[in-house]
Amino acid sequence: MSYDSDNIFAKILRDEIPSSRVYEDDETLAFMDIMPRANGHVLVIPKTPCRNILDASEQQLASCMATAQKLSHAVMTAFGAGGVTVQQFNEAIGGQEVFHLHFHILPRYPGVALLPPGQMEDTEVLTANAEKIRAALADG
Amino acid sequence: MSYDSDNIFAKILRDEIPSSRVYEDDETLAFMDIMPRANGHVLVIPKTPCRNILDASEQQLASCMATAQKLSHAVMTAFGAGGVTVQQFNEAIGGQEVFHLHFHILPRYPGVALLPPGQMEDTEVLTANAEKIRAALADG
Repeated sequence: MSYDSDNIFAKILRDEIPSSRVYEDDETLAFMDIMPRANGHVLVIPKTPCRNILDASEQQLASCMATAQKLSHAVMTAFGAGGVTVQQFNEAIGGQEVFHLHFHILPRYPGVALLPPGQMEDTEVLTANAEKIRAALADG
Repeated sequence: MSYDSDNIFAKILRDEIPSSRVYEDDETLAFMDIMPRANGHVLVIPKTPCRNILDASEQQLASCMATAQKLSHAVMTAFGAGGVTVQQFNEAIGGQEVFHLHFHILPRYPGVALLPPGQMEDTEVLTANAEKIRAALADG
């Protein structure tokens, strides 16, 4: 399995398509999922190429998890979530749709199931949610 | 939120209750989930106490992900899986049932959905699957 540098997350990293960014450091980027399965659903990706867990370096995995932890705290604060579900899909049969390693950070709320996949959120909602997360990170 | 050292995974680490172990190193342990949601469902945990992603150290997260990667390759080989889904639950509202950090490694097969939760597998099946994974790791 190879890495296709025209995948949508590679384009987001190169700013060729817009995204609602919430956090970045030297190694990772976090931005809002445009088809959220929970209010505040964020994605964490490495800035360097890799397809998924099968070809990632230990450092890519470690830096993504460090950012996933930061974002887990931030979404709990930003949205008053009671928990967080982390999902990470590998290969199409494993549920992967974009072939750049990514971790889903899903804030969870009492009695609220995950939304069905594939429903696009309004940009204004994503922008507002990104702002809430950035504020929580700044307070963090 | 605090860590309860009487949780079931802490007891597995202390060998107070049996488990089908497939891999361990200085920092992590992997063993078969007794209620598999896919054939070959493995759990990866740190050997040191932490509740979930919210209180884990960067090193606990990094070492668990390094082991998750090893096991992802191993279950692909052992069971001829076409992909892997990784899940990690935080707090009861986030889907967590045992309060020691753990990553679910779920081998995936074409056209096969995840099984419903809560169905106990026969020990002989778990033992045989553990052996297949250990063999794949040894060949790896």
